[in-house]
Amino acid sequence: MMRAVDIIRRKRDGETLSGDEIAWMVAGIARGDVADYQWAALLMAILWRGMDDTETAALTDAMMRSGRMADLSAIAGPKVDKHSTGGVGDKTSLILAPVAAAAGVRVPMVSGRGLGHTGGTLDKLESIPGFRVDLDLETYGKLLRLNGLVLIGQTPEIAPADRFLYALRDATATVESIPLIASSIMSKKLAEGIDGLVLDVKTGNGAFLERLEDAQHLAATMCAIGRKMGKRMVALLTAMDQPLGRAVGNAVEVEECLNCLRGEGPPDVTELSLELAAEMIVLAGQAPDRERALALCHDQIDSGAALERFRRMVESQGGDPRIVDDPGLLPAARDRIEISATATGFVSRLAARPIGQASMRLGAGRARVDSRVDPAVGILLHKKVGDPVERGEALCTLLANDHGEVEEARSLVMAAYEIAPTPPAPMPLILDRWDDSENRPAVME
Amino acid sequence: MMRAVDIIRRKRDGETLSGDEIAWMVAGIARGDVADYQWAALLMAILWRGMDDTETAALTDAMMRSGRMADLSAIAGPKVDKHSTGGVGDKTSLILAPVAAAAGVRVPMVSGRGLGHTGGTLDKLESIPGFRVDLDLETYGKLLRLNGLVLIGQTPEIAPADRFLYALRDATATVESIPLIASSIMSKKLAEGIDGLVLDVKTGNGAFLERLEDAQHLAATMCAIGRKMGKRMVALLTAMDQPLGRAVGNAVEVEECLNCLRGEGPPDVTELSLELAAEMIVLAGQAPDRERALALCHDQIDSGAALERFRRMVESQGGDPRIVDDPGLLPAARDRIEISATATGFVSRLAARPIGQASMRLGAGRARVDSRVDPAVGILLHKKVGDPVERGEALCTLLANDHGEVEEARSLVMAAYEIAPTPPAPMPLILDRWDDSENRPAVME
Repeated sequence: MMRAVDIIRRKRDGETLSGDEIAWMVAGIARGDVADYQWAALLMAILWRGMDDTETAALTDAMMRSGRMADLSAIAGPKVDKHSTGGVGDKTSLILAPVAAAAGVRVPMVSGRGLGHTGGTLDKLESIPGFRVDLDLETYGKLLRLNGLVLIGQTPEIAPADRFLYALRDATATVESIPLIASSIMSKKLAEGIDGLVLDVKTGNGAFLERLEDAQHLAATMCAIGRKMGKRMVALLTAMDQPLGRAVGNAVEVEECLNCLRGEGPPDVTELSLELAAEMIVLAGQAPDRERALALCHDQIDSGAALERFRRMVESQGGDPRIVDDPGLLPAARDRIEISATATGFVSRLAARPIGQASMRLGAGRARVDSRVDPAVGILLHKKVGDPVERGEALCTLLANDHGEVEEARSLVMAAYEIAPTPPAPMPLILDRWDDSENRPAVME
Repeated sequence: MMRAVDIIRRKRDGETLSGDEIAWMVAGIARGDVADYQWAALLMAILWRGMDDTETAALTDAMMRSGRMADLSAIAGPKVDKHSTGGVGDKTSLILAPVAAAAGVRVPMVSGRGLGHTGGTLDKLESIPGFRVDLDLETYGKLLRLNGLVLIGQTPEIAPADRFLYALRDATATVESIPLIASSIMSKKLAEGIDGLVLDVKTGNGAFLERLEDAQHLAATMCAIGRKMGKRMVALLTAMDQPLGRAVGNAVEVEECLNCLRGEGPPDVTELSLELAAEMIVLAGQAPDRERALALCHDQIDSGAALERFRRMVESQGGDPRIVDDPGLLPAARDRIEISATATGFVSRLAARPIGQASMRLGAGRARVDSRVDPAVGILLHKKVGDPVERGEALCTLLANDHGEVEEARSLVMAAYEIAPTPPAPMPLILDRWDDSENRPAVME
């Protein structure tokens, strides 16, 4: 007979848990014979001692099976999703999903909300009047078949053990563990019914994991889990030192996505979105290599097919499709506050984390999970790293409503910018790449 | 404002907690705003990262203050107790308490029950028909004043936070932490109202902490806590490789104590009991040094004063005082099973742990905290380490009733004995000593 205390003791002493032990502990949450305090002790022991890839895959599998799993087998074609570990101005889902769908990939996407300095795909979508993300798994499958893409939130039926453990980790300082982060993400993604997954693991001052080696470790761990579960996996390691694109907030980010889908968006967010979409297309077998997949992506934008997919998704999920042609119908903030440069030169640094924090202070993000988000507020970045700037010229504009903490936001934004007399060296956006075909070690080449 | 998650994170990251943080976490149990799962995570982080003497003293103090503290200030004279970390056949409390009391020390003793292979003072006392250990703190103080000694169990009013955390540690594999063990013991002892404490920290195969360095660390930690709380502290490090004395059980141990109090007990248990009593007498200022304190101890035995104190304690706590002169009134087991030597030579080893486990199998101890104890059963050891033995001669006698697992006990006992052709080197009983006057490092000299 298994006992929780023996399993905790084994992990405490640095031993490797069996798949049966991990499954028994996870199932014990629903059975009721493993107490939350026993899981709390085990979580701290895991944070201390770590878990190998086999243990992490077993935890992922057990959490995935704790709830309903979407069965998309009746839907023809390869189902591929993308997951990002989150950043500031990170809006690629809203661009790559319609592009990949238009190129023939089925994109079943279960997304999250923003917390702290990072935004969330669901919050951005909900800035579209009427848009609903709380669809059940039946509607989810129906819309995927109909439109080739669907974007919803985690329903209570998906991976309830992960919801329980995530709340417990939040209250017990056991969030920062690579195997726990990886299994939490993967348990939800694998319950979506996907065949393959493209990961965008971010590193840098605006990322959840700031250090490159931690991001590499997380990317390698998630790829290993996915492969053990029979999924095709690709991971890009990408820079999150400055915000992605020029818009940070919710409605303003939707508007920027519409620009990208018209081929008129900022180069960094367009480039990353299409690189990720191309990886999805190759994983799905819709193109033989990255170059041809990228060409296919550009075709979807040039022809208007990607924008049309976005419009169909908005309409199918209850949103007002007129925003596609008239972004003025999106919520707008009352006040526009310009922040001017105090020196002439080049932007040498634009730290993502304080920009995200400033956006949160304006009301675009959440300090706590139960905070309300204002869809209209945010920040427009007129100058980014490498841009020349003259003293007195506008660096950015704060979009504020009267409940926002404007002065705190202004201070954060001013401290985020650095201006130097000479232009900085260009920074690469994509730092590294893992895929199924190689057994990459978790270090940079 | 303090938050449990921040305090857990600080300990997780190896930082030192402040006294205020520790007090806030302990008080949070009664306030209800620190959840048991948060304490479970903190306990695992403490087991991992450790606590320094200041943190351990703060935890002790907070647990001590979580309940009522006995106020013995109205009782004249120095109050000194002894605590043992537990062993097999460890019955010194029942001997040293009446000896020290007869020599003028006030002995307020709150004891525990046995668990696993180790016995408990309360279980031994309760083998005396009628004896009550569940006295409230008022009666406790009254009997201390009347008799100079009182032996009770931990009441619900004493250190309730320790009771809560002890149960949580048991369920979360966080028992084996020196600072947690030390603070748990000391919080209860300090709530008794003592001025000084003598510790008997056992090491060897029958002790809770088998390794000498762990026992030294525990002794040093408890002495440091006591000194920080203004108490006089002495610790003896003693051997628990073979059982103490010749009786293991409950009624049989009481009978052996009566023999010791008459000056007719086995030399090892008599020697250790009087050494500990002498330390108490010196701490209490009733003798200037160990030699004169030991002489005083022998006086109390030779004069019958110690035996008389024992009789008064039994009578005051509801027990039948006639057992003092007629131990035949104590419960007796139905069956006596002799175990004979299979070789001629000398006993070279008599492992304490399997003897304690055998006694538990016979019913004298508890496999679980809610097991019932049979006062009558146990083991009489006719041969101990160094004794010559002839093939076929009785090594020991199992005292059994029909519910006991006699065959399992027999196997354990037979495996506990080793016989060699030559006598073993004598083993010291007292291995080390700490006291207030020196800042001993936690290593052997």
